[in-house]
Amino acid sequence: MHVFLPDGKQLDLNAGATALDAAKAIGPRLAQDALAATSNGDLVDLMTPLPEGARITLITKKNPAEAAPLFRHSLGHVMSQAVGEFYERKGFDPEAVKRGVGPSIENGFYQDFDLPEPLKEEELPQIEAIMREILGRNLEFSRAEVSKAEALARFSYDPYKAELIGALPEDEPITFYTQGSYTDLCRGPHFPSTGKLPAAFKLMSTSGAYWRGNEKNPILQRVYGVAFASQKELDEYLTRLEEAKRRDHRKLGREMELFVIDPLVGRGLPLWLPNGTILREELMRFLREQQFQRDYQGVITPNIGNLELYKTSGHYQNYGDSNFSPITVDDEQYMLKPMNCPHHVRIYASKPRSYRDLPVRLAEFGTVYRYEQSGELNGLTRVRGFTQDDAHIFCRPDQLKKEFLDVLDLTVLVLKTFGMNDVRFRVGTRDPESTKYVGSDENWVTAERGIMEAVEEVGLPYTVEPGDAAFYGPKLDFVVRDVIGREWQLGTIQVDYNLPERFDISYVGEDGADHRPVMIHRAPFGSLERFVGILIEHYGGDFPLWLAPRQIALIPIADRHNEYAESLAAEFKRVGLRAEVDDSTNRMNAKVRNAELSKIPVMLVVGDQEQERREVSVRERTPEGHKERKGVGFDALLAELQERYTTRA
Amino acid sequence: MHVFLPDGKQLDLNAGATALDAAKAIGPRLAQDALAATSNGDLVDLMTPLPEGARITLITKKNPAEAAPLFRHSLGHVMSQAVGEFYERKGFDPEAVKRGVGPSIENGFYQDFDLPEPLKEEELPQIEAIMREILGRNLEFSRAEVSKAEALARFSYDPYKAELIGALPEDEPITFYTQGSYTDLCRGPHFPSTGKLPAAFKLMSTSGAYWRGNEKNPILQRVYGVAFASQKELDEYLTRLEEAKRRDHRKLGREMELFVIDPLVGRGLPLWLPNGTILREELMRFLREQQFQRDYQGVITPNIGNLELYKTSGHYQNYGDSNFSPITVDDEQYMLKPMNCPHHVRIYASKPRSYRDLPVRLAEFGTVYRYEQSGELNGLTRVRGFTQDDAHIFCRPDQLKKEFLDVLDLTVLVLKTFGMNDVRFRVGTRDPESTKYVGSDENWVTAERGIMEAVEEVGLPYTVEPGDAAFYGPKLDFVVRDVIGREWQLGTIQVDYNLPERFDISYVGEDGADHRPVMIHRAPFGSLERFVGILIEHYGGDFPLWLAPRQIALIPIADRHNEYAESLAAEFKRVGLRAEVDDSTNRMNAKVRNAELSKIPVMLVVGDQEQERREVSVRERTPEGHKERKGVGFDALLAELQERYTTRA
Repeated sequence: MHVFLPDGKQLDLNAGATALDAAKAIGPRLAQDALAATSNGDLVDLMTPLPEGARITLITKKNPAEAAPLFRHSLGHVMSQAVGEFYERKGFDPEAVKRGVGPSIENGFYQDFDLPEPLKEEELPQIEAIMREILGRNLEFSRAEVSKAEALARFSYDPYKAELIGALPEDEPITFYTQGSYTDLCRGPHFPSTGKLPAAFKLMSTSGAYWRGNEKNPILQRVYGVAFASQKELDEYLTRLEEAKRRDHRKLGREMELFVIDPLVGRGLPLWLPNGTILREELMRFLREQQFQRDYQGVITPNIGNLELYKTSGHYQNYGDSNFSPITVDDEQYMLKPMNCPHHVRIYASKPRSYRDLPVRLAEFGTVYRYEQSGELNGLTRVRGFTQDDAHIFCRPDQLKKEFLDVLDLTVLVLKTFGMNDVRFRVGTRDPESTKYVGSDENWVTAERGIMEAVEEVGLPYTVEPGDAAFYGPKLDFVVRDVIGREWQLGTIQVDYNLPERFDISYVGEDGADHRPVMIHRAPFGSLERFVGILIEHYGGDFPLWLAPRQIALIPIADRHNEYAESLAAEFKRVGLRAEVDDSTNRMNAKVRNAELSKIPVMLVVGDQEQERREVSVRERTPEGHKERKGVGFDALLAELQERYTTRA
Repeated sequence: MHVFLPDGKQLDLNAGATALDAAKAIGPRLAQDALAATSNGDLVDLMTPLPEGARITLITKKNPAEAAPLFRHSLGHVMSQAVGEFYERKGFDPEAVKRGVGPSIENGFYQDFDLPEPLKEEELPQIEAIMREILGRNLEFSRAEVSKAEALARFSYDPYKAELIGALPEDEPITFYTQGSYTDLCRGPHFPSTGKLPAAFKLMSTSGAYWRGNEKNPILQRVYGVAFASQKELDEYLTRLEEAKRRDHRKLGREMELFVIDPLVGRGLPLWLPNGTILREELMRFLREQQFQRDYQGVITPNIGNLELYKTSGHYQNYGDSNFSPITVDDEQYMLKPMNCPHHVRIYASKPRSYRDLPVRLAEFGTVYRYEQSGELNGLTRVRGFTQDDAHIFCRPDQLKKEFLDVLDLTVLVLKTFGMNDVRFRVGTRDPESTKYVGSDENWVTAERGIMEAVEEVGLPYTVEPGDAAFYGPKLDFVVRDVIGREWQLGTIQVDYNLPERFDISYVGEDGADHRPVMIHRAPFGSLERFVGILIEHYGGDFPLWLAPRQIALIPIADRHNEYAESLAAEFKRVGLRAEVDDSTNRMNAKVRNAELSKIPVMLVVGDQEQERREVSVRERTPEGHKERKGVGFDALLAELQERYTTRA
């Protein structure tokens, strides 16, 4: 048989040859260093026969990260073996440990177990130690094809494996992978031997998981691990994880008193506490100002609507399980609104429009409700009720591009304001196979082309995701990478030729005839809940002055300075700045520490000298560290902070 | 028998004597002038026997207004007779006209008819003419007591009267009143004769009304009239009515594009159009500023809540038909929130509170939903979904009075800001008979006394309305009289010892023990929908500068001034003022007229001279009429308008 190397060179091998055979044919050194290979672009291991004519590359210990899914999978087998040995050492029969599935996942691996007694979190280091022993034994991974009967006989003691084997087709070979005394039913691929696996792994946690994900089945114990090609990568990952934990918006939300979720009020329905409400209202004020300058018009619509409205729009039919169940009122049915668009379309339709009136830009901070399964709910980022910074632009087809570019401009400005500079676009188009979309092919083609042209014009990076469109039109999503490297989907812009048709809205053109407007749906923040959740993590709670719920801490050195501090706080309040006096009996250093812990950006210490000269000593938290200024005149500082607040500097 | 006169004098009369007999006993002149009387404070007529020992006063033609309910009722009978004669003249049998009820009402009277053919609105003047004929005939009203059998025989042709008579008790006398050939089943009282009735009446309209208010019964035709003691009063009333029509917020709401109600979205669920949204947001901004200065803290809560929450608060049990029906979510039930209080109580309860933290003042513009029958819905003033300018103050009992007075102060300030200076208080207390209230007697007594003391301290006029309390506590409502004399109920303040108990909330006192806080519920506007509806009527659409959705019209004299006008509009916009350029092809005078019709308060005309000198000619609408200023420097005007906008002057 023949395979081809990356440089195009052809290699002649015996029939049934593996990647290891190919490596050997090239040279013994390569055979020694090889860890895995790709065959026609897919990762394969060294012991699986290659197909005739495959284009192969060999992955060596020089770049083991390229084979990460393989070593993660193999480390999963090692962990599974280690758990077996752990219970054997405890005196259990080896067949007392039964196993569900054990795949590689992003950053690591997991394995499900049915154990004779539960594995405790504090026992994980012991498992890790046995894993390191197994790596030291340098056991070879070997691959074997067996018949279904053989497979069933081998795992007769394990009902989970038996069930998996039973479900496999009769006529396909079943493969086992074995390292040392440990054999598992597995498709592979794997590393050549345990000695070649990276030691940069860590077992993270255990949790319960229903067998085959079905809650009617028994719960197995799932053990998670992470693994990287090098200790440096593992350390970085663990640091990022620590950092993500430190920034977790649920944790900071509680500590900074931003929001709570109270089951008596409702799951997935955050209560915004005073500090969180300030954050949210500052965001709204910011966007309202932008929208006023860009000639948007505000509207306000109810949180419910007649079911007929959503039948006309198609939300009722197309939104499925996301809709809450209807409410009967007299002889009508109503529903919590899942989207604001139908309401805005009806406002557009409430009077005749001429070509001269367009574009009409209707904006609303509209609170919508969508059902999410309880298991999916998560702090502010996955909720059942949220407020969109929504707007709908009704324009003539000849205005579409300009309007779309203006929305793009606004969205990029919004993101930059929060220092979110690492942005990419994701264009969601129709899945040509699916029937869940409304509207004519022609409308879809026009709308998708419109978005592509605009994105090309702006010149930012983008990807196209077929099947990711809304049911009424294609969309452009903004994906932002935060300071610790995580990606978040934020705002969205959608182009829609279909709702205007379903609601039969029009404008009178220059020709005196009725024409159909195009709609743009847009939300630069997306949802205020989600955006605030992300902002909390993005800033790690260290908000810039304009956003900080608690802006200024006045710290009197002694009781006799309290009155002076209060008088300054009153002056800040008069101009709308949020200042508070720490009049506790704590010592000055403790007051400063408390203000630091509360993440108050500006601390003003006042003592005898400050009081005498109407001054303050300024201590500021900045991304670059602390900034201190002594003996600053109060009036100048007031003007400075007011200016920074107003300009969001 | 004896009766007593206002001066205490006793009058001896024959048994069964009437007020007319009493008047005759005093003197023939009084008997001649008497129109009606009061007996023990109740209005009575001259022909009904007085009770023994009654304290009576006689009402004469010098002050006929005191007997308004009587002459309105009598004019109703005259109208009923006139309608009978109208159909007789048309050739119908007199018994073809059948009659339902016909009481006196505020400002007038009505009578329900089953007519052989419908009475047309344009025929009302003919009925009025016959009524005037009947007044000219000076027919005496006579009273007769009859047996039930006699009564039934008399009205055998009229199923409505027969039904009414059939329902009367067997053993009580039935009374008929007769003027001329017209007799009606009636309890009275009435005027002595048609000649003594005031001619200051007018038939206003007809409408359909179900017999006995039951929609399963036939529809009768109801004819409405108004009547006053003098033509002057009638004219004033009709003028007020015209004025009210001109100011009708539904009419102005449509004309000024403030809001629409769209049945496809939902009945009683206003859609706020851009101009109305500006009004509403200006109100919110105003109150937010006040609340920031008074140390309120904003919160935001969802529009739905778990049913358990409303069971705990008692809203579910006590709010009855006002609640929308529940929504099932997984294994829980939710409801559109009828009030924000339970949510705010849970926010209070979300962390431990110390006596030092109180008062906690939580404010929210919270949108609530309450069911109203479709027939009750009316524009913005009676809706199914509305936003309250709600706040809940949690305080120690020793802080209650100060907090209550501060809320009173805020509410009076709010009303004064809108020139609503004619305010009275209405204290709603518990109805001691009713069982619809929650909480202990002691709590109610304390809370009611607290309100009374505060109101006394402020020294504004008030009335007490037993049975008008909320189910959890007594309340103080603000009743405002508008420029055309109508009264509106606006803001409310409620004192509540009960919800804190039901939710078992507490604070740690200075003594280290748990104590129960008191709650104040308050909403100075009441509901934004209702308040805006009333404001529209109060101002007749002529809003002051800060509230006006469209503040400034720039009017170029010729096309060549458009660019200059646009540049000024841009400068207004930059500082947040709402300016627009009329760049139509209309002549200057037509542009001014259009701005006037749109009720734009500031019109700026710009021509050659203004453009050259960076000036404008100012024309302002003020309550005192127009104010004109020529050659005003633009920068000075910009600063002036900005200042007026900011200070709401």
